[in-house]
Amino acid sequence: MDLKVPDEATSGYDALYGLEVIAADATTVRGVVPVRDELKQPAGLIHGGVYASIAESLASLGTTSQVAPDGKMALGLASQTSFMRPITVGTIHAEANVLHRGRTTWVWDVRISDDQGRLCAVTRMTVAVSDGRAGRARGRADAPPRH
Amino acid sequence: MDLKVPDEATSGYDALYGLEVIAADATTVRGVVPVRDELKQPAGLIHGGVYASIAESLASLGTTSQVAPDGKMALGLASQTSFMRPITVGTIHAEANVLHRGRTTWVWDVRISDDQGRLCAVTRMTVAVSDGRAGRARGRADAPPRH
Amino acid sequence: MDLKVPDEATSGYDALYGLEVIAADATTVRGVVPVRDELKQPAGLIHGGVYASIAESLASLGTTSQVAPDGKMALGLASQTSFMRPITVGTIHAEANVLHRGRTTWVWDVRISDDQGRLCAVTRMTVAVSDGRAGRARGRADAPPRH
Amino acid sequence: MDLKVPDEATSGYDALYGLEVIAADATTVRGVVPVRDELKQPAGLIHGGVYASIAESLASLGTTSQVAPDGKMALGLASQTSFMRPITVGTIHAEANVLHRGRTTWVWDVRISDDQGRLCAVTRMTVAVSDGRAGRARGRADAPPRH
Repeated sequence: MDLKVPDEATSGYDALYGLEVIAADATTVRGVVPVRDELKQPAGLIHGGVYASIAESLASLGTTSQVAPDGKMALGLASQTSFMRPITVGTIHAEANVLHRGRTTWVWDVRISDDQGRLCAVTRMTVAVSDGRAGRARGRADAPPRH
Repeated sequence: MDLKVPDEATSGYDALYGLEVIAADATTVRGVVPVRDELKQPAGLIHGGVYASIAESLASLGTTSQVAPDGKMALGLASQTSFMRPITVGTIHAEANVLHRGRTTWVWDVRISDDQGRLCAVTRMTVAVSDGRAGRARGRADAPPRH
Repeated sequence: MDLKVPDEATSGYDALYGLEVIAADATTVRGVVPVRDELKQPAGLIHGGVYASIAESLASLGTTSQVAPDGKMALGLASQTSFMRPITVGTIHAEANVLHRGRTTWVWDVRISDDQGRLCAVTRMTVAVSDGRAGRARGRADAPPRH
Repeated sequence: MDLKVPDEATSGYDALYGLEVIAADATTVRGVVPVRDELKQPAGLIHGGVYASIAESLASLGTTSQVAPDGKMALGLASQTSFMRPITVGTIHAEANVLHRGRTTWVWDVRISDDQGRLCAVTRMTVAVSDGRAGRARGRADAPPRH
């Protein structure tokens, strides 16, 4: 099954850092981000926040794509990233695989690798699934808690 | 004690998403990021990756500022972020407090709040401290593992 | 406000490793565990799993005490522990402070210290709050997902 | 390659909660824990701390087995566990797979499942590798920081 990738996936913040979603099905979402100097920390390595951002986007997209048809919404609840090897050139490759599809939370395992296929970072991403009420937060200064 | 904030703190990725470091001493680093649409995810909330990015930058800066004089370098090892309340307007406020200053790892607690002072996200950031050899990775395609 | 500490808090697994809950109010739960050889890993230090266990128990107890009157139940969703300093003798001291009380998740910060008051480990604990249906899982081999 | 499983693996805390290590090679360590009431939290489910404990033990054992021949020692640095499905009867099955073997840190992915092979919890475990000086902490009240 191929999932429709919403246009929003590459607008806003995802567009700012350059995420391109290249594949999405019921269990896996893949994306790439070209390395550029604007994504680096002072020592010249890709900033760890970029990996966390990619992971959240892929996991959120994968969850939203499947729960939105039921009128539900997905929102990041927690993420944990371990940084293992720096990336300095080429392309950042990311693959998110779903580990758990519960009634109220989904858990994803996201792996980041370099052009040589070496594992550079891993993220455990937990996404909350709700009945959509949290969506009313949009654009309000006095937004309610996410969860 | 006031620490010198390196100019690099607001170049590269930090400049892309708009981090401004406003204070740094031996135990605390504070920064702000103005909200803008380019930092949002599809539902109109600030993307969780922005919080993780801010946390990593403040904790890394706080560690580097103190270990660099001894010829050591700091590099992110792991981060864990819990998302609690969305931010949609105004300014993102972040404060990093050091919990542990070990020989090889430093641990920081980072709290993100909105203009009303409400806690919106928390990050536990672990920074590895090494003798600087990892610094040679800079700009090399075949960089060694970070840790 | 003092919360009633349920007797169950020191039965089952908590009794096995020796948790004693010594105080609980709306925002803080404190407990202690006496060090004994049965709680150590092969190198003679208190096993990291003990800290994670204490943290989950205090955070779950603190949440349950406050949501149970509304017919809701609390169940651990995720935990993250950073180990900073070993404990080998004396008493393990733990204090859990609530960071977030949401509709469906509560987040706690748990700090573990030794007899000298030094910070030895920190846990970020996320507890899911639900309407109690998950409670039916009790004692069933074919239990449903927790969340 | 089969690794020798040290006798210590099933003494101390591991013996208390009932860990049996059943297999260990260069990349994978497997263990089981029989369910019993002493391992449960008040609601009758296996306590989440048991999963975190198993994960730390398997990852630490897998690392120690491989770095000890070089005179190095392994010590838990951080763990993150996501709880997905309760276990109430039978046997807890755990498998740890190494994701990263760095100079100073190893990262493991640990999966916990029930008798039906369903994924019940996942742990990301980071183990610090050092030259053994931390080992002197053993049995001292004034132990130095772990890392």
